[in-house]
Amino acid sequence: MEQYHFTYNDIHQTIADAARQITRSGFEPDYLLAIGGGGLIPARILRTFITKPILTVSLSRYSDETGSAPSAVPVKLQWLETHCDLAGKKVLVVDEVDDERTTLEFTLNHLLETHPEAEFSVFVVHNKDKPKKGVLPAGLKHFFVGETIKNQWSNYAWDARDIYSFGPSEE
Amino acid sequence: MEQYHFTYNDIHQTIADAARQITRSGFEPDYLLAIGGGGLIPARILRTFITKPILTVSLSRYSDETGSAPSAVPVKLQWLETHCDLAGKKVLVVDEVDDERTTLEFTLNHLLETHPEAEFSVFVVHNKDKPKKGVLPAGLKHFFVGETIKNQWSNYAWDARDIYSFGPSEE
Repeated sequence: MEQYHFTYNDIHQTIADAARQITRSGFEPDYLLAIGGGGLIPARILRTFITKPILTVSLSRYSDETGSAPSAVPVKLQWLETHCDLAGKKVLVVDEVDDERTTLEFTLNHLLETHPEAEFSVFVVHNKDKPKKGVLPAGLKHFFVGETIKNQWSNYAWDARDIYSFGPSEE
Repeated sequence: MEQYHFTYNDIHQTIADAARQITRSGFEPDYLLAIGGGGLIPARILRTFITKPILTVSLSRYSDETGSAPSAVPVKLQWLETHCDLAGKKVLVVDEVDDERTTLEFTLNHLLETHPEAEFSVFVVHNKDKPKKGVLPAGLKHFFVGETIKNQWSNYAWDARDIYSFGPSEE
């Protein structure tokens, strides 16, 4: 089974290219909103090119701290403060990969519930080309993708135990 | 004037080494808490080695979105939700660099104010060897440093406009 190995520089360049596309589209967010943990690194890289403040929400999906099986539905670890006023703001939600789309569906539905007066768009570094279980809400404004990838296992540099032996994908 | 250039792999390795030190010291946090924006990438890398959930607080110091001069005091963009219960929890606060220590002082004082029943420690990837303007609060449990560096300008890979021309520091 083939696997991807995405180095830091790969990801950085994909985000740089995507940022140019986003800017050329005329879309200018007021905030970047990272879905943690996966969106934290992409959001910070994106800020180099689209210099807006980063907010975060954190979900726990894979219970890697306990070793137990991943939960079917994400668990909210941290959300926006209730007084966080996003009325009329354009928020670009950032994550590393759109796999089954369940994380995005969960996150966007909750965001639309807690902050109905904001406008939400999405940027994912990678979109896996596969049938999706989750549905994007109708109110979503834009859906930006850094790169559409095949439905195979993706290794990201930040998960490497030994970074100097972590090589790029052979294509 | 000499400058540092810290590649992603440099930072990853520094954090991997530091995580081993932290673990060997017997300290085991319940949460990692990233100071955004600078701590987002280090905290996510650290989670590869110390698999605990990541919380975040976000400060804006340098008003890079407006082009105006940086504020003397950080501005809180996002904080922990008021119902976030950290009583009795060990929280490891993560940032990229301890420069003048003002960000750490501000953050820790506010954390101790909003969550007095938690135990806070700090991990910074880099500590600049220079006189500090900020003071670490007495209640701080541990102060972990990835690497002590000279007081010179530090370029981090994530700020690179062109990542493939971003080289490592020459030493």
